[in-house]
Amino acid sequence: MAGSTFGTLYRVTTWGESHGAGIGCVIDGCPAGLPLGEQDVQKYLDRRKPGQSRFTTSRSEADRVRILSGVFEGQTEGTPIALFVENTDQHSKDYSNLKDVYRPGHADLGFDRKFGFRDYRGGGRSSGRETTARVMAGAVAAKVLSELGVTLRAYVRSIGPVVCSPDRMDMAHLPESPLQMPDAEAEKQAEAYLNDCMSRLDSAGGVVECRVDGLPAGIGEPVFDKMDALLGHALFSIGAVKAVEIGDGTAVCSLAGHEDNDQFGIAEDGTVRRLTNHAGGILGGMSDGGQVVIRAFFKPTPSIAREQQALGKDGKVHALRIRGRHDPVIVPRAAVVVECMTAITILDLMLRNMGARMSSLKDVYL
Amino acid sequence: MAGSTFGTLYRVTTWGESHGAGIGCVIDGCPAGLPLGEQDVQKYLDRRKPGQSRFTTSRSEADRVRILSGVFEGQTEGTPIALFVENTDQHSKDYSNLKDVYRPGHADLGFDRKFGFRDYRGGGRSSGRETTARVMAGAVAAKVLSELGVTLRAYVRSIGPVVCSPDRMDMAHLPESPLQMPDAEAEKQAEAYLNDCMSRLDSAGGVVECRVDGLPAGIGEPVFDKMDALLGHALFSIGAVKAVEIGDGTAVCSLAGHEDNDQFGIAEDGTVRRLTNHAGGILGGMSDGGQVVIRAFFKPTPSIAREQQALGKDGKVHALRIRGRHDPVIVPRAAVVVECMTAITILDLMLRNMGARMSSLKDVYL
Amino acid sequence: MAGSTFGTLYRVTTWGESHGAGIGCVIDGCPAGLPLGEQDVQKYLDRRKPGQSRFTTSRSEADRVRILSGVFEGQTEGTPIALFVENTDQHSKDYSNLKDVYRPGHADLGFDRKFGFRDYRGGGRSSGRETTARVMAGAVAAKVLSELGVTLRAYVRSIGPVVCSPDRMDMAHLPESPLQMPDAEAEKQAEAYLNDCMSRLDSAGGVVECRVDGLPAGIGEPVFDKMDALLGHALFSIGAVKAVEIGDGTAVCSLAGHEDNDQFGIAEDGTVRRLTNHAGGILGGMSDGGQVVIRAFFKPTPSIAREQQALGKDGKVHALRIRGRHDPVIVPRAAVVVECMTAITILDLMLRNMGARMSSLKDVYL
Amino acid sequence: MAGSTFGTLYRVTTWGESHGAGIGCVIDGCPAGLPLGEQDVQKYLDRRKPGQSRFTTSRSEADRVRILSGVFEGQTEGTPIALFVENTDQHSKDYSNLKDVYRPGHADLGFDRKFGFRDYRGGGRSSGRETTARVMAGAVAAKVLSELGVTLRAYVRSIGPVVCSPDRMDMAHLPESPLQMPDAEAEKQAEAYLNDCMSRLDSAGGVVECRVDGLPAGIGEPVFDKMDALLGHALFSIGAVKAVEIGDGTAVCSLAGHEDNDQFGIAEDGTVRRLTNHAGGILGGMSDGGQVVIRAFFKPTPSIAREQQALGKDGKVHALRIRGRHDPVIVPRAAVVVECMTAITILDLMLRNMGARMSSLKDVYL
Repeated sequence: MAGSTFGTLYRVTTWGESHGAGIGCVIDGCPAGLPLGEQDVQKYLDRRKPGQSRFTTSRSEADRVRILSGVFEGQTEGTPIALFVENTDQHSKDYSNLKDVYRPGHADLGFDRKFGFRDYRGGGRSSGRETTARVMAGAVAAKVLSELGVTLRAYVRSIGPVVCSPDRMDMAHLPESPLQMPDAEAEKQAEAYLNDCMSRLDSAGGVVECRVDGLPAGIGEPVFDKMDALLGHALFSIGAVKAVEIGDGTAVCSLAGHEDNDQFGIAEDGTVRRLTNHAGGILGGMSDGGQVVIRAFFKPTPSIAREQQALGKDGKVHALRIRGRHDPVIVPRAAVVVECMTAITILDLMLRNMGARMSSLKDVYL
Repeated sequence: MAGSTFGTLYRVTTWGESHGAGIGCVIDGCPAGLPLGEQDVQKYLDRRKPGQSRFTTSRSEADRVRILSGVFEGQTEGTPIALFVENTDQHSKDYSNLKDVYRPGHADLGFDRKFGFRDYRGGGRSSGRETTARVMAGAVAAKVLSELGVTLRAYVRSIGPVVCSPDRMDMAHLPESPLQMPDAEAEKQAEAYLNDCMSRLDSAGGVVECRVDGLPAGIGEPVFDKMDALLGHALFSIGAVKAVEIGDGTAVCSLAGHEDNDQFGIAEDGTVRRLTNHAGGILGGMSDGGQVVIRAFFKPTPSIAREQQALGKDGKVHALRIRGRHDPVIVPRAAVVVECMTAITILDLMLRNMGARMSSLKDVYL
Repeated sequence: MAGSTFGTLYRVTTWGESHGAGIGCVIDGCPAGLPLGEQDVQKYLDRRKPGQSRFTTSRSEADRVRILSGVFEGQTEGTPIALFVENTDQHSKDYSNLKDVYRPGHADLGFDRKFGFRDYRGGGRSSGRETTARVMAGAVAAKVLSELGVTLRAYVRSIGPVVCSPDRMDMAHLPESPLQMPDAEAEKQAEAYLNDCMSRLDSAGGVVECRVDGLPAGIGEPVFDKMDALLGHALFSIGAVKAVEIGDGTAVCSLAGHEDNDQFGIAEDGTVRRLTNHAGGILGGMSDGGQVVIRAFFKPTPSIAREQQALGKDGKVHALRIRGRHDPVIVPRAAVVVECMTAITILDLMLRNMGARMSSLKDVYL
Repeated sequence: MAGSTFGTLYRVTTWGESHGAGIGCVIDGCPAGLPLGEQDVQKYLDRRKPGQSRFTTSRSEADRVRILSGVFEGQTEGTPIALFVENTDQHSKDYSNLKDVYRPGHADLGFDRKFGFRDYRGGGRSSGRETTARVMAGAVAAKVLSELGVTLRAYVRSIGPVVCSPDRMDMAHLPESPLQMPDAEAEKQAEAYLNDCMSRLDSAGGVVECRVDGLPAGIGEPVFDKMDALLGHALFSIGAVKAVEIGDGTAVCSLAGHEDNDQFGIAEDGTVRRLTNHAGGILGGMSDGGQVVIRAFFKPTPSIAREQQALGKDGKVHALRIRGRHDPVIVPRAAVVVECMTAITILDLMLRNMGARMSSLKDVYL
């Protein structure tokens, strides 16, 4: 089975290549009766669009969404929602020198070995441009979730060595932040670091963090389809992600049990509260009622203008300088992709949870 | 959809609770013609079995596998392989005090909220005992893979703050290593650390690393079912895993592009080689022909004898001391679980890759 | 993907061969909170068990079900329910002459070509004995459905040329009917027909009809997973079924539109009613609120003691007399299998329908 | 899970409504390296297009296909193939009187009960226009199959009471046959029958038969995903199909075992041959090496201009005359839909069969 579909009940299928007619997705399983217009999707696409800072590709795409099916009289119909964005600014000639060489850090070799040949223009199907489709599908999922009281927010936690300080983080800063960092001071340092990178014809990586509020406890399926397992699947499916953490993440391995377990106590207002959130809102694969916290670690953009030593189709080593238009850092544009994949995953699990008990079936059918 | 099945073409369904009749799995999709006997599975189960060091639960289970179907005259038939291990040493009374309180760090609250009630004996379905089934299924997958020249090995890379040193790592040490650490010196330090943990009625976490050799390039499905995405899904589905890394993992976020890209050169023997393996053998979601390297970070065992402040079913905070038999560290027994989940994932992707090209179809059918 | 799993949300996986350790199934996705005991399943198995008339195999199996997991304190837990029936009366030697010849009307040739070899004892995995597992899974589904007000009944509508007369059909006759025919007079004729068949060392086919009452309108998924499509899948998956009908079935092709459309009118009691049920309760792939009516046409038992001309592994024609214990007609024992596959299919679709609208999500989550 | 996807390895997702922007499909899992152009798909669409006889809707759609992704330099890439046909001739106003009444024989009631409202223009998602997408996907599947030596042909076997005579059937007549009947004499009678239907403002049904040649033995998955089960699923998913037969179909129930079993003998040319094909090429759910024969029974078009008594949203009975443009018989246009669904199903099963044995894995990987 090819792998262009994600989700079990909220099923997203994406299609399209970097230099083809456009990028599309089909959402099957969106509940009927959700008010939905193109603007609901467009505002998410605009967060992903290049051109919001000097640290993005110079490829200029309007990325205007069209809803081709599934919405009638302003509401979702329960039928498949087809969404489409046209490609308008391909420069395919930029890529002709890549036909016979495998770019380091890219999928090129794998594609050739798997399929026998590949679309070498802009990465073809493995281009970051494919994430446009995920953002469209995630925008719809996020709207469903918001009607159920569940909200999500992803942002850049670090770029290269520059990390946001928890003390200075202010989500209100995000809408005007070109690097999508909630810490204005860290953002300035990150800009300096990126300028330096670019002057060296090099690129940078970073970390995206996503937080989910309002999720009821018990969402996620025991054993293989734990919430963390599906979030891991979702985030590792984004190109360039090399690590994923839930809650305290890698740090847990050196904690003692009594430190890592989130215990309960009575807050100042007299209510019973979980005192810490080391678990990141997920225990035993199910939401525990706390805030879900997840992080994706992105490698630096592999397309760099510096000379590299690459393997050729001929089995020899070739000196390669990559032309074309590439983001020196993709993390700021990837934040909304992480948010959207998280939204898709959580909505899917909430739908899967609908039939978990006889009492819910009786609520709906009797 | 409940979540007790993993894999698309090599499909593993597990069943059983900690204190029920036993633990079983059904493998559907194993290719016919594989020589298979109970001893092939038993040797993997023996690596998971408690009692190999003083740092494991005192629960004593023989864990003898029975093959109930799918094997005829010593070979797999292509039909479902049902594997079963009986539970023989349950002490269900140990758990009666947990009926009305949610253990910190456990799935208890989620189970109750999801299903309306739960089997409170030994964690029920969310017990680590469920991984017995995964080991059985993984043992069969590993045998298929070995016939295709693909081999896997997982081991403990760290326990608490004690990390194996790459210089001292010797895989030959593993068969006799109670903590499954390939570095004998680190193992001694880890034993001291664990003794200290136990004296404080506390527990420890750690890291399991798995390496896969002999995998051809091009395995993994572009977009959502990337090899890293499915490995992430697989490893995060193991209870207590809070982070997963591929290759350089979290470290990539602060590297520069030219550092992270694996470049090629000519080795001393004159052959063309990838000079580094930052990518951990996976690029663009497909194997790149190099060694696959993946790590899972385990939190400390949440069941500890120290007093904890836990939420009760009544919404109040209760002081809780957990009785029962628990591993102070699960990482040594988890290594084979990581190896088995990796084997299942990779075999599944190799099967999915069979029809990737017209030329393969013609090879099989014409 | 091998095909031993059926259903999307109520997922049934079966395993086992005719002459192996036994037959089992795993149900994943059964809602929690259903009261369930072994007797609930046993009474369905007893309807399938051989020995209820002289027209069944002389193989004598107790077919006692064991619930191995998923039920705690008398209720389903939401975790996988593993059900098992031991094989106790295999006579494997009866089959040694079938090793190198393909029985006419059987799966033997296909198995050999597909897998390279096969378990020739009693049909192995393709034995009718596999349906034991379906009956176990269907018994549980039927119990869930009954709690939602949905009831099912399957019976034998014809054996060979003998058809029940609608005028004489009396469901109250079924519990004492050895041939599971609701028309006592037709049953006598069928017995005479079967006696004649047996005297000629031959076998008979027949038709099973299943009716479903109490189903709300709107169940079934538009386009590919229509209720009729999934029922067709379910019933054709029973060995020996060569045709399936919904409602008026094959007869519709020669009706005029105004005859076939079910129209509405006012009944004697003043209520609005559908005047006919040509559609068999399904329109556009969804239940329409009427009684669902479905029929499966079974071919005669292919194992007959008469001499037949069969293909051998050696590519030559061999005269074959089949020994072993075979039902001269399987239809009476197949009725409960049809009922159970129908129950599984309809429950699965009711679960899939849970998230069809925003209003249902809000009912459950807000 | 909504139901707009069909197939496991050759996965087809369709979208679009009768009166929306258009109809599309996404094929995921098509093997790479198949030569493919728009004309390959167009010639199948042209067989489905209205306007080939006076017995079709007067809706006039060009139905020009566009390939939006997945093909590069004239070959399939292994990535999703998105295909699109624009809607150009909607007359939505024709349907305004259907907003508050449920058309007899249609999905209207089910849609409203399931989703809370519906697109009443031309049937919305349940329109026969959706089958455009299936034809596009089936055209690609048929091309793959033809490269493997497998060919398919569907045709009209009967319209109303007029049945083609086996003696007169001539496939060479099909390309010029407006009713897609291979018997020119029957076609004339069918035309007379249809003229009579139309004069009575009524409609007709019929039977489509499909034959598949060149299929190797062993295709199809034992137990639930038998070839006949998946073909049943596929054909019953076409609107208006009320019965499906394989081989001798309903007739088998009254045959004796020795009549129904296909036996072997030596043909005149000295080769060993199956003497009959009652099984329709499928035994035990797998192809047996013979010709596959399958039939779908279509009800008469439910949209008729005669007055009917229909249920209204208000629970009352309403006199209804259906305006709009409707085929008095859909069977001639449905033939290619049956052929395409059969192609999709069989290709999917051939892909699923690729990993059935260790020897095939070794062929591809070693």
